[in-house]
Amino acid sequence: MSWLTEVAQHQDELIKIRRFLHQHPELSFQEENTKNYIADYLAALNIPVTRDVGGNGLLGYIKGGRPGPTVAFRADFDALPIDDEKDVPYRSTMPGVMHACGHDGHTAMLLITARILKQHEAELAGNIVLIHQHAEEVLPGGAQSMIKAGALDGVDYVFGTHTASYIPTGTVGFCPGPAYANADAFKLHIQGKGGHGAAPHETNDAIIAASSLITQFQTIISRSVNPMDTAVVTIGEFKAGTAFNVIADSAYLSGTVRTYTREVKTLIKQRMAELIHAVEIGSNVSITLDYTDGYPALFNPEKETAWVKALTESITEVDEVIQQAPSLGGEDFSYFLAERPGTYFYTGVMNEAIGAHYSHHHPKFDLDENGLLNGVRVFLKIAENMDQLTK
Amino acid sequence: MSWLTEVAQHQDELIKIRRFLHQHPELSFQEENTKNYIADYLAALNIPVTRDVGGNGLLGYIKGGRPGPTVAFRADFDALPIDDEKDVPYRSTMPGVMHACGHDGHTAMLLITARILKQHEAELAGNIVLIHQHAEEVLPGGAQSMIKAGALDGVDYVFGTHTASYIPTGTVGFCPGPAYANADAFKLHIQGKGGHGAAPHETNDAIIAASSLITQFQTIISRSVNPMDTAVVTIGEFKAGTAFNVIADSAYLSGTVRTYTREVKTLIKQRMAELIHAVEIGSNVSITLDYTDGYPALFNPEKETAWVKALTESITEVDEVIQQAPSLGGEDFSYFLAERPGTYFYTGVMNEAIGAHYSHHHPKFDLDENGLLNGVRVFLKIAENMDQLTK
Amino acid sequence: MSWLTEVAQHQDELIKIRRFLHQHPELSFQEENTKNYIADYLAALNIPVTRDVGGNGLLGYIKGGRPGPTVAFRADFDALPIDDEKDVPYRSTMPGVMHACGHDGHTAMLLITARILKQHEAELAGNIVLIHQHAEEVLPGGAQSMIKAGALDGVDYVFGTHTASYIPTGTVGFCPGPAYANADAFKLHIQGKGGHGAAPHETNDAIIAASSLITQFQTIISRSVNPMDTAVVTIGEFKAGTAFNVIADSAYLSGTVRTYTREVKTLIKQRMAELIHAVEIGSNVSITLDYTDGYPALFNPEKETAWVKALTESITEVDEVIQQAPSLGGEDFSYFLAERPGTYFYTGVMNEAIGAHYSHHHPKFDLDENGLLNGVRVFLKIAENMDQLTK
Amino acid sequence: MSWLTEVAQHQDELIKIRRFLHQHPELSFQEENTKNYIADYLAALNIPVTRDVGGNGLLGYIKGGRPGPTVAFRADFDALPIDDEKDVPYRSTMPGVMHACGHDGHTAMLLITARILKQHEAELAGNIVLIHQHAEEVLPGGAQSMIKAGALDGVDYVFGTHTASYIPTGTVGFCPGPAYANADAFKLHIQGKGGHGAAPHETNDAIIAASSLITQFQTIISRSVNPMDTAVVTIGEFKAGTAFNVIADSAYLSGTVRTYTREVKTLIKQRMAELIHAVEIGSNVSITLDYTDGYPALFNPEKETAWVKALTESITEVDEVIQQAPSLGGEDFSYFLAERPGTYFYTGVMNEAIGAHYSHHHPKFDLDENGLLNGVRVFLKIAENMDQLTK
Repeated sequence: MSWLTEVAQHQDELIKIRRFLHQHPELSFQEENTKNYIADYLAALNIPVTRDVGGNGLLGYIKGGRPGPTVAFRADFDALPIDDEKDVPYRSTMPGVMHACGHDGHTAMLLITARILKQHEAELAGNIVLIHQHAEEVLPGGAQSMIKAGALDGVDYVFGTHTASYIPTGTVGFCPGPAYANADAFKLHIQGKGGHGAAPHETNDAIIAASSLITQFQTIISRSVNPMDTAVVTIGEFKAGTAFNVIADSAYLSGTVRTYTREVKTLIKQRMAELIHAVEIGSNVSITLDYTDGYPALFNPEKETAWVKALTESITEVDEVIQQAPSLGGEDFSYFLAERPGTYFYTGVMNEAIGAHYSHHHPKFDLDENGLLNGVRVFLKIAENMDQLTK
Repeated sequence: MSWLTEVAQHQDELIKIRRFLHQHPELSFQEENTKNYIADYLAALNIPVTRDVGGNGLLGYIKGGRPGPTVAFRADFDALPIDDEKDVPYRSTMPGVMHACGHDGHTAMLLITARILKQHEAELAGNIVLIHQHAEEVLPGGAQSMIKAGALDGVDYVFGTHTASYIPTGTVGFCPGPAYANADAFKLHIQGKGGHGAAPHETNDAIIAASSLITQFQTIISRSVNPMDTAVVTIGEFKAGTAFNVIADSAYLSGTVRTYTREVKTLIKQRMAELIHAVEIGSNVSITLDYTDGYPALFNPEKETAWVKALTESITEVDEVIQQAPSLGGEDFSYFLAERPGTYFYTGVMNEAIGAHYSHHHPKFDLDENGLLNGVRVFLKIAENMDQLTK
Repeated sequence: MSWLTEVAQHQDELIKIRRFLHQHPELSFQEENTKNYIADYLAALNIPVTRDVGGNGLLGYIKGGRPGPTVAFRADFDALPIDDEKDVPYRSTMPGVMHACGHDGHTAMLLITARILKQHEAELAGNIVLIHQHAEEVLPGGAQSMIKAGALDGVDYVFGTHTASYIPTGTVGFCPGPAYANADAFKLHIQGKGGHGAAPHETNDAIIAASSLITQFQTIISRSVNPMDTAVVTIGEFKAGTAFNVIADSAYLSGTVRTYTREVKTLIKQRMAELIHAVEIGSNVSITLDYTDGYPALFNPEKETAWVKALTESITEVDEVIQQAPSLGGEDFSYFLAERPGTYFYTGVMNEAIGAHYSHHHPKFDLDENGLLNGVRVFLKIAENMDQLTK
Repeated sequence: MSWLTEVAQHQDELIKIRRFLHQHPELSFQEENTKNYIADYLAALNIPVTRDVGGNGLLGYIKGGRPGPTVAFRADFDALPIDDEKDVPYRSTMPGVMHACGHDGHTAMLLITARILKQHEAELAGNIVLIHQHAEEVLPGGAQSMIKAGALDGVDYVFGTHTASYIPTGTVGFCPGPAYANADAFKLHIQGKGGHGAAPHETNDAIIAASSLITQFQTIISRSVNPMDTAVVTIGEFKAGTAFNVIADSAYLSGTVRTYTREVKTLIKQRMAELIHAVEIGSNVSITLDYTDGYPALFNPEKETAWVKALTESITEVDEVIQQAPSLGGEDFSYFLAERPGTYFYTGVMNEAIGAHYSHHHPKFDLDENGLLNGVRVFLKIAENMDQLTK
């Protein structure tokens, strides 16, 4: 009988875990109690754990009784600097810190998955690695350092899921191809020459230069990027000047660039550099660009995504399997998929009736815990069918 | 013998007055002690004084022994919210308040002028009105309210002078025609619709709208204003956005408009309104304009300016009489000249050797008190020649 | 035995047809001789023909001996106003008219397909409709009027192919989803007020207004269109002014808009209208927009495309089957696919060795006639497998 | 008795000369018949003439009987490539050539002046040089080459006048200081990379680059030029593109720059160069600038202008003497004033009743010949008072 039939029995336990974590959120790179909680939980299941992998990350190992590939499941466990505004018993107890992105749910799903798989380890056709990752929310993220510390050593495939408060409970989503973007940040400092508001000819007006730069930046997307490619260049901040009658000597801009490929990203950086240089020459200002690469884009391989999708369609408790549109946000699971085949899917947890419909990062964000059961089912389904994966 | 020969005798007294005022500056509309000081000084000279004219202003009257026109001399007496950074014995005793524009010198010149004229009142071919004006530095200024309160009643001509730290002691300047500008201020609030930095299509980007508005504003000067006219439109401040990856929902701009005529000012306001409306429609934002009229432009009549200039050229103590270029700053003496003929001239007080060369409003501003004697001489010369003025 | 084995025998005939048509090209809507040629050819095969369907279009009918769906194959047959610059015996004999897009090859493929199918009509599990379409190159195109005239009456599926001089002979391409764009045209007339080059204030400068409009149009793509959507707004022409020292009273712009969906097209038209109105208000000009809808976007249904793709992969003479990237060009086969399921595929005819590598519409365009045999094979393969299609 | 009393007697003669010239206009640098006409006229008066001075120019000499300075009077005599649309007996007999700027009147005035002065040469306190200048309308103009050829050798002062169809007959105008501008021309060729209208990423769009350049050029006037200075930068022509769906590979712009000083002109050329370079870098295009200096600005010296103005005010036949506003047009009399003191005044010839009110260069331009008499009178008045001029 399928291991999936056991999932419902662990519903209370899953909710208990999720709510404990929700009440005790910790910021990225500061997840001391959370990592201990996970380590203790796995230890109690007799699952061997390697602690402090690339930071606060943990790895758990379940060795199958039959030969087969090694499959990793990943869940991240850090929280956000947001004040929980929900009025529920399991509200965050940490002022200004909140699991507003659902990483508590990710962890609960993986721990219940581990509990069930451990009981079936003899039947497993291969091995399971549990990747409990810290610090997904803050650059440079935990994924990269965990991989460097060996998280994928011996691993053949890697799978993960993100809860989705915009997908109804009962639904699971897949997004073959580009799913998350290169999400980069930049700062621009334009240094001109200030002066009296009535004497523009004695100045190099930083506001004029910056406005011109912003206007010209629009052509990067409208003319330089292939219309078939997806890209965004946004200026989020513009700060300049101190008085209405004084010409500003400098301006500060910040913004973000979103792309799905290295080629498009490189093109945009080149065009930004050209236009910056152009404005320097045309407006007699000097401009410094401080560009920070975010997580690389996440590509879900067609083959493994289609395989998990087909498996998911066979799960009776899953009401619907959907094609999910790509996001222009960032996600450091991309580092794992850059190294190994696998997929990153979406577990629907929206339930308006119980207030679980706020967007991720919203102070009232919540998730329908019943939805998490499906995430567990997909992980188990993958584990049950590991023999279909070539090592 | 000319009354001008007596000026040098009063040099110490003039310096004493100027330094007392310099040590006890008062902000615009708060000049309690200064107005009492002036009132007491004039009273001690037996000059009748009307107090609290349109605020803290004062009027003094010297009736001539011979028939002739009534001529007003004006000096302003308010100080600025600047911390005096000079290291001199007569440094301001009021933290954060300073005579950094030379109004202490204006007052000292007029009081010494009054002292000498009072002694010669029998010889005067007409009457003198002393206009000691408060609050020149801050809108709406004292000139307007003093006029409303009767300062120009019975007055036929009005003259005044501004010290100039950019003109050497010994030199007096004249500027027929436009001399100071309409110096207006404005604030713009652009209200768009914010959103995620990667989803521009769901927003109405306030930074894009504001940058476009600024770019388009350049055509007001380059295309709409007659090239023969003088005008400036400056954006001094641009504040928008809170994060690099969030599209700003609003932007705040402030700026100034400088013109010499009502026609050009009206044209600019019309073009601003048209371009604002255009950006509202083109960028789906709403924009509010808060426009504050500054002092009107100051025009020195050709005739009276030429007359005083010629008189000044005959003063032996004056080394040089120059044509002064117009300023795009503001000055509320313009209200007096809008009502009566007269002129506003420049008394050179620059003397680099004693550190009197900083620009007006600079924390180290100082003036060469010897220069003030020439201002007194010009006033006296006018008074001596009042019979040349038609009533 | 598969009918495809017979294709090679007709190679000479196919080349003969193609070269005859190549030598006798006719412009869109003027294809008198071409339509007679086709009608005669089909008549000689005893295939019943309906002439003058929606213009110069023709329909041929092959009734199968077995029950099944009715499948239409379409080939267009008009030429372009281009002067043939090739030095080959089959060069165009019509000065200024040329089959520079491969429609001669389309027609040759369909006629050979018809010849073979006619011979096997008894075995056919359904009926075949041959759609020989006129006027694909010029708006409003022949497809729409042929459909209106009944070309799809009783038809269940419709298939077609375009030769591709950028895909090697031996390769066949497929593009599920959006394959061709909404390709619209527009003209803008900006009416300002001209005048002397030294008196901008007396004018409403049409060049300034048009330049501002173009600059602002960039934000349609960069900010208003969802970054996930594909769209282009291009200004191709800018004509204004008659002399260096006269301010232009009007400007003429023309351009094109490319989109894949009605929603994006509608959005762009709305944003164009808003920005046009904005420039009218901001620049005191009046602007007229003349917008011409081109062919609607062509969407290849996933299911039928996958089906034909799989069939094609089973053809031994086809070296490679590729996924073809969407084009932002237009194609009026989209009208057929808007009415019936089917697909539009790409028949590779590039062969650099024989000079068949110039882009479509190039005066030296040529195609490798060997490649055409594969197009015939795909049509035949579809016909052989019609029983797999539900009626 | 003043020589001015004789002017009215020569009215018919003056009209005869003017009309003859009006009927026989010749284009700049092609004034063969006109120069002969003038030479013959002066020869008939026994005035020695030097021909072909710096081209078609002529110099006539009248030696005074008394000592004094040498004063030159200048009149230009070329016509314009305009078709005369007037319906008058003295209409141009040369199709496409017309005295539409009044140079026929200038010549007539100077010839009548010469006739009268010749009769009074014994009384003259100095000498007169008659400068009949060719080619004022077309760069590089005749003034420069006549000076080079010695036109000003021995000359102390130089005076000239322009008819003005915007000043009523009876009125004479003066403009001390800047009166005509540096009127320069430029051409810009922007070379980008063309391509398909749907593939902007493969091109460097010349229309986008040119529009951006034009937008940025606005800041030259709005920000870089001192608001106190007068300047214009106009783009008169914009030509780019051949089809709505093809991205233009190049764009052609032409325009004009108007300034009054070398400093402002130099600043504008520098800013143009900087912005051109900026657009080259920012838009990946190459731009060539072809800048042609026009005539230099014309400055009327204060002293001599005031002197002639005062003389003119004493002429009873002159109804009114006005201050004329500066023009932003060009005039090569500026070369003479750059070498010698003098002035260039305006002779009113507007008379709406007889249709003499069209602007200069208009195909219906005409002048009131009665107005010309005043020009003669001013020249004579100068000659009568030459003894007031220091040699």
